[in-house]
Amino acid sequence: MPPFSRISVLGPGLLGGSLALALQARRPDADLRLWARRPGAEAEIRARGIRAAFFTDASAACAGADLVILATPVETMPALAEVIARTELAPDAVVTDVGSVKGSVVNALSPILGDRFLGSHPMAGSEKTGIATARADLFEGAACLLTPGPGQDARRLRALWESLGCRVLEMSPGEHDRKVARISHLPHWLAVVTTLAALRGDPEAVACAAGGFRDTTRVAGGDPDLWTGISLANREALLASLHEASSVLTELVEILAKPDEEALRRCLAEAKSLRDLLPAAQP
Amino acid sequence: MPPFSRISVLGPGLLGGSLALALQARRPDADLRLWARRPGAEAEIRARGIRAAFFTDASAACAGADLVILATPVETMPALAEVIARTELAPDAVVTDVGSVKGSVVNALSPILGDRFLGSHPMAGSEKTGIATARADLFEGAACLLTPGPGQDARRLRALWESLGCRVLEMSPGEHDRKVARISHLPHWLAVVTTLAALRGDPEAVACAAGGFRDTTRVAGGDPDLWTGISLANREALLASLHEASSVLTELVEILAKPDEEALRRCLAEAKSLRDLLPAAQP
Repeated sequence: MPPFSRISVLGPGLLGGSLALALQARRPDADLRLWARRPGAEAEIRARGIRAAFFTDASAACAGADLVILATPVETMPALAEVIARTELAPDAVVTDVGSVKGSVVNALSPILGDRFLGSHPMAGSEKTGIATARADLFEGAACLLTPGPGQDARRLRALWESLGCRVLEMSPGEHDRKVARISHLPHWLAVVTTLAALRGDPEAVACAAGGFRDTTRVAGGDPDLWTGISLANREALLASLHEASSVLTELVEILAKPDEEALRRCLAEAKSLRDLLPAAQP
Repeated sequence: MPPFSRISVLGPGLLGGSLALALQARRPDADLRLWARRPGAEAEIRARGIRAAFFTDASAACAGADLVILATPVETMPALAEVIARTELAPDAVVTDVGSVKGSVVNALSPILGDRFLGSHPMAGSEKTGIATARADLFEGAACLLTPGPGQDARRLRALWESLGCRVLEMSPGEHDRKVARISHLPHWLAVVTTLAALRGDPEAVACAAGGFRDTTRVAGGDPDLWTGISLANREALLASLHEASSVLTELVEILAKPDEEALRRCLAEAKSLRDLLPAAQP
């Protein structure tokens, strides 16, 4: 299976821009193309040193491609998929995305693109968005979750992500959404809860903040539009995780209200042992 | 008012060890003494390059001191205060602490030490504990909260913390405990909730973790004994903050369950604008 050689990236934000930078560094042989809605995006990508051919016509950007990567907000993907479906790609072409949810994306895109579509989710990003924050090493050491359907072969796509430095895991779209609700969307929401509960009633308390507040709430500085879209697209799994969080919070509040010192120590020790599962070196 | 010249630090953990390193760098003229319960601590402090005179007898460590800094867990402070009260300090001596709560510490220590005691809380630390993690620059740029009682003059103590790089704020012990419950203890508990809700039901989801999970839950890797003590000592203010967090969580879950897209976007935008109050450069 030859590596992809004509790669179109749609959407030059943090992820699309980082993909372009990483691909031109790691795959200088590939024919790289970048699409954006706005003509003004070209100056921005050139300012970041991206040499890819630039298009504002999505069909022209994808013609003949053997890999198309959708790096736009999830709500805009179906319309782009319709354009791609009407475009002549390479015969063995693969279309993938970098969206934070997979069930709704696969359900929306597979009927349009058929077996060409195979979802990806590189677990990399930042509370910052846009091409200005893109970096060639964004995917280095990150997990990338692929969601091949029955009978779909993910090897060629896996090799691409591995060439960018990712650890690749394969799972179903449903399992993806449940795991990512736990490990990414829930932490985002609890960072929002922490920020609102801490500062709504006393914004001046921010003057006392140290590293704990800064890190615990970092992602709450993320783009509200982006996170509205992600939350609605993974609503069911996120609600299940939020109900779990609500039960845990109730349990801990009861323990502290009593107070039951031994139960408190046990819960804090349980949380520490679970947190310590995270490898220290992981990005 | 001359600066303190004979300084005793009690407890060579992360904070006490960092104080010793910072004082010997910034105040090489001061006579610095360090007390630990365990004789074995001496080899550990020497290994970190701390040159202070070492004592396992707290009274000997404090004799003649014009500043005593309690850097032990809050539960052990009253017994040490009794020893200090029986020791002849310098006539104008100040005793302070670095504990994470102030109401209960001031209530316990002021009757023993009288007006000599004036609480401090440098907002610096780490999920790691112990002398191995001590650093001379730990206090650089950190907020330090002082809680002088009526008629107490905090200027000399303020100058000391400022000489270590702190931004000093003064407030009552009650206000301290409410602000710190919001900005430090609540984030700690919600990091614990996030970790338990994310991983109790599926520890393998940790393989998908990225920077969001890592940062949001970092402090949940902290010492369970230390945080049991802090939580119990600031129980009332922490419970008030946790009830606030529980209301916010319920509000957000209702919005997502509907779903009310506009209300969701509004809450995420409110959280972002509050989080953005934190100066980017703050440690």
